[in-house]
Formats: sequence, structure tokens, C-alpha cells
Amino acid sequence: MFKEVKSHKNGARAGQLANRVTPVNTPFFMPVATRGAVKILEPTEVAATGAQALLENTYHLHLAPGEKLVKKLGGLHKFSVWDGPILTDSGGFQVFSLAHARKITEEGVVFSDPASGRKVHLTPEKSMQIQYDLGSDIIMAFDDLTGLDPAKQKVREEEAVERTHRWLLRSIAEFKKLTAKTPRAKRPLLFGIAQGGLDKKLRQNSVEFVQSTEVDGLAIGGLSVGEGTTQMHDMLEFLSTLYDPAKVRYLMGVGEPNNLRFAIEHGVDMFDCVLPTRNGRHGTVWIDGDKRLNLKTEKMAADQGPIDKTCDCYTCKTGYSRALLRHLFKAGDPLAGKLASIHNLRYLQRICETYR
Amino acid sequence: MFKEVKSHKNGARAGQLANRVTPVNTPFFMPVATRGAVKILEPTEVAATGAQALLENTYHLHLAPGEKLVKKLGGLHKFSVWDGPILTDSGGFQVFSLAHARKITEEGVVFSDPASGRKVHLTPEKSMQIQYDLGSDIIMAFDDLTGLDPAKQKVREEEAVERTHRWLLRSIAEFKKLTAKTPRAKRPLLFGIAQGGLDKKLRQNSVEFVQSTEVDGLAIGGLSVGEGTTQMHDMLEFLSTLYDPAKVRYLMGVGEPNNLRFAIEHGVDMFDCVLPTRNGRHGTVWIDGDKRLNLKTEKMAADQGPIDKTCDCYTCKTGYSRALLRHLFKAGDPLAGKLASIHNLRYLQRICETYR
Repeated sequence: MFKEVKSHKNGARAGQLANRVTPVNTPFFMPVATRGAVKILEPTEVAATGAQALLENTYHLHLAPGEKLVKKLGGLHKFSVWDGPILTDSGGFQVFSLAHARKITEEGVVFSDPASGRKVHLTPEKSMQIQYDLGSDIIMAFDDLTGLDPAKQKVREEEAVERTHRWLLRSIAEFKKLTAKTPRAKRPLLFGIAQGGLDKKLRQNSVEFVQSTEVDGLAIGGLSVGEGTTQMHDMLEFLSTLYDPAKVRYLMGVGEPNNLRFAIEHGVDMFDCVLPTRNGRHGTVWIDGDKRLNLKTEKMAADQGPIDKTCDCYTCKTGYSRALLRHLFKAGDPLAGKLASIHNLRYLQRICETYR
Repeated sequence: MFKEVKSHKNGARAGQLANRVTPVNTPFFMPVATRGAVKILEPTEVAATGAQALLENTYHLHLAPGEKLVKKLGGLHKFSVWDGPILTDSGGFQVFSLAHARKITEEGVVFSDPASGRKVHLTPEKSMQIQYDLGSDIIMAFDDLTGLDPAKQKVREEEAVERTHRWLLRSIAEFKKLTAKTPRAKRPLLFGIAQGGLDKKLRQNSVEFVQSTEVDGLAIGGLSVGEGTTQMHDMLEFLSTLYDPAKVRYLMGVGEPNNLRFAIEHGVDMFDCVLPTRNGRHGTVWIDGDKRLNLKTEKMAADQGPIDKTCDCYTCKTGYSRALLRHLFKAGDPLAGKLASIHNLRYLQRICETYR
């Protein structure tokens, strides 16, 4: 489903990812619409930043409003008023980061929803069914990922990689069952996730395993979970020698501008991250040179300029001043977080556009 | 500055209020941009509901960011990215409703800012200076208003009306001083406020006094502060016999659709109210027939329809379903409150348009 259009000397490549909705030009960054919407932003505003596809969270949407209701309402596109492609994650990362009292077995994961206390079961099959019911266009295989606890790391990491592979095969089998009667052009894509933490042998094993299956794309999971920049870049450099040119490569959860650039220059095509919107809501924005600026400081109070004079985002172009944004942040008006989110999203889209 | 264009059999009239920015067609409703912005909404979104003018709050803007800073930044229009006319209230109502430890003397009011504990003095002269520095297009005279405490009511009400009149004369004098060198076409308008609670004799006295001065408009203050609908309507009916046809009439703080209609049919031209936006942020919307609908209820969960099929607002036209709005309210996404605010603002603008 992926077609390379051109490759640059610096290691980056530009291409196109076909899917059942609209082809997406790579490299691209997906804003995170956790519960069906990018917080405070309308879908049209998200699209205006240059976003071609959204990531929505299986874990959150399963808990509320639930995939059965979303399906009844016509699927995620209709529900969240978004025409472009939607990728759903597998739920695995949220189980790891949010769920209470989770128990991982070969069958899958059982955990308590922190909000309701309700017991939830998630297995590779269940994850496929949920994502399919939601109406996702890019479905992620259910994976097992570890944290960076160095004590438990080594053994747990091996176990996690092997389980991720077994779960990938179960994900593929369930996906095939669900889509058996769907013509190829109407079928969602399925991506597999390579794990292996910071262990190169495990990583190589995992990337090669995932690429040997029938998945449409290779995702790199388990990075950007607390390791240092050098460690991440070292791993990305190593991985870049292993990629199958025919498969699209998706680095999950990465959104720092310098990491985005480094990954693109090492053959990565796709990204998602909450950073631009979460930082934006808290008043932190990127300005030219990947510098961070805190809009809430006293220094902004009388600054009539836009967030960044060199920026072409809606917020900077419309005449919203740093002074007004600071005032609105101080006043607790969510409009400030929205306008800063738009700026940050555009910042990352512009990086992708430059490479395309 | 006001020109009546036509009057209807039902008592309503349509006209135009000239001002230094853009003429406003009456009757009209002003959304409340307390701190320089209508919460969560961009100025363009506010304008798209049909709003021609905004009300901004002197009390809040004086406390933060302060009129001196707003002036330095080019005034409220530039600061809040709004081209249309801006009316600022006098601060009197907020002193009455928000301030702690307030003390009223003939000179003015001293109170503590609940947020900072800072002591603030407000006098007719000070209120004029603040509004002038903010860059307001319609300045309200500083008034003294009472609550509805029946025990203190009578004596206090008389005192408040008389003081309001003396403060009006001081407001006019200060306004003249401030604008002495400004050509007439560039001068803001000044409105006086009639008080008198539910006492018809006091009200008549007050309306006649305000209309006898040089103010550009007559505002009715001290209604919609807790009295019943019948009492309010009875007073509006009484007042409608006293109006000077040459002066625009502004009923402060009224925004319930039935009250808006009743007031328009009894000669009122202007309104402001936080109700459409405050209710919207809490999930309550008006639907056809002035009925209230709570978007947060279980009944909305699977409702694919818009808030109101008969509505022409942006939210209803764009395809946002009751189900999505309920989901976003439950998820705590401010986008829901924004979209409901837009709907409610449009609801009131449509009423005004019908009468125009």
C-alpha cells in the first residue's frame, strides 16, 4: 500500500500511503484525537494545520462511548466529523501507562478502568474487534510493551517481544476473519508493532519478524518512553539499516521536532504524539530553531508580536498577540490552549512538508 | 446617534445606532467577552453568529491585564482582535456581585479583589478613565445598584437612585473632559443607567432624569437580578410609556429568549447577557420554542441529530451530533462548550434578526 516517490541524500524519503479513504503523503504527523476529537479543536481546524490523518485511542473510545455505540452512529468518521484517514492504536500503550491493577497473561490483559473501577479484558482478538467496530482505517496489532525499569528490563523485554510476536499472529488471524468479506479496496490497513526496548538484537529480531508477516506497515513501539535522546537516535540509526523499502514505517509517540527530523532522515514515514497539543494547552510553544517558549511568563505581558514572526500558522497569521495569549492563559480561557495547539501542530506539519 | 427606521404594531422598533466604528442595526444582542474574549470562542466565530457588538467587563479588565497595558497594546480592538463596536460596562454590577468587603460612599466604592486581595477604588471619574483607556466605543456611566433584599430595599433603593443620578452627572463631566479634544465622529458614546428596582415611581424619576441629560443612550439597570418574570415584564411595560424616541434603550443583563422578545416588543433596542455562553458551557441549549435541552443526559448518547433540526447555526449545520456533544461534555473537552455557546448565541441573534 506504500509507494516511495523519491528518496533524499540525507536518508529521508517521500512517498504515498494508499488507504481506503484518501492517500496520505509521507512523511506525515498525526495529531492525537484521544476521545474522537483533538482537545478544544474542531476537525476543520486540525485539517487547516496540514494534518492528513488522525490518531484516535482505542482504550479511551472503548471505555466511552464504546465501539458498539460508535458503530451504531455510523463509525468514527461520521461521529467525529472527520473525512480523512483515522488510525487507531491497539490500546496496549494505555494499558501500560494508565490502567490500574493490570495483569498480563498469554491470553491478554485484564485491568481496571481508573474512572469507573470496571474490569476490562483486552486481547489481540478483542483489540481487532474494537478497532474494526470503531471504523478505523489503520488498525494496530495488539502489543506487549515494557517500561524502562532496568532491574526487570532484560528478561521482561525478551518475554514482551516474543509475546508481541505471538499476539501479532493472533491479531492478523482475527483481522483476516473480520475483513474476509470486505473487498480489498474497502479493507482497513493492518500494522504490526516491533518492540525490543533498547536491545539491538531484540529490536532486529522484532523488526524482521514483523516485516516477514503480511502487515501493511511496520510500527516502532516502545521508544520515547523515557530513554535519552542519544539512546533513541542510536536505535533509530540502527533500525534504519533493517527496513523493508516496501513497507511504511511508523514511529509511535514521537513528536519533539529534533526527534522528528532525525527519524525522518533515518527512513521513518509516520508519527503521532500528544506533545504539540498537550504542551500547547499548557502554554508551551515551539518557535523557530526548535526553541521552547512559555507563553505564560511576565515577559509576554506587553509583547504585541505573534508567537513566531516566521510562522505561517492560523494563530500567528490572524493577529493573536503573545500578550493576548498570556492574558487568556492567566484567565483560564481554553481558547488560549486551542490557539497554541494550532501553532504547535502547524510547526510539526511544516517539518514534514519540508521533507516531502 | 440613534435613528429609528421602522416601528412595528407590536411595539418593537428597528433602527440604527451610529458609533465611531460600524453602525449597529437594532434590536441587537451583545455576547459577553468578560476578559476581552467570549470564553473558548474566537472573535470570528462570535461574529459568525450574527453578533455586531461585544460587551467587555471593565471590572475584570481593570484587574487584569489593566487598562494601561491594554492602551499600550493599541486598545481593546487590537488586543482582542475584534473590529466591531465594543461596549464596556461601568464596573458597578461586578462590584455589587463579585467584590468582597465593598464599602460605598458618596465618593465611590472601595473593595477587595477576591483573587489578589488588592484594595481597589472605583469612582465615576475612575470608571470613565478606565473605559476611555481601554478604548471602549460605548461607555457606561458608573451607577449604584442594590440587590433585592426586601428589608433594606426601600430606603436603600431611593438612596441608590439619587446617588446614581449624582454619579451620572460626574460621569458626564469626566467624559467631557476626557473627550474634549476628540472630534465628535471619533468620540465614544456615553450611556446613562436608570435604576429604581421594582418601584415604579423611582423608575419613572430615574428614566426621566437620565433622558434629560446629554447621554447618547438610556440603559435600564437593576433588572434580571432575581425578581420574577411577571415583575420584570410589568416593569418593562410601564417603562415603555416613558421612553424618549430619540434615545437608544439598552436592557442590561437580559438574555432569556422570552424576556428578549417581551422587551423588544416594549421598545428595547439593545441587550447583553452571559446566559447563552454560560449555559452553553454547562451543556444547556435552547431549542425551537424556547425549550431548554440538557446535552449531558443519557438520552443524548445515541442521538445522531443536531442540537436543533430547525437551527441555522454553525454547530447544527456542520454535522456535530447531540451524541458527539454529549460525549465531549462527558470527556471534559471545552470544544463541546464552544459549540453549544455558538448555538445559543445564534438562537438569540435570530430573535433579533426576526424583529429587524
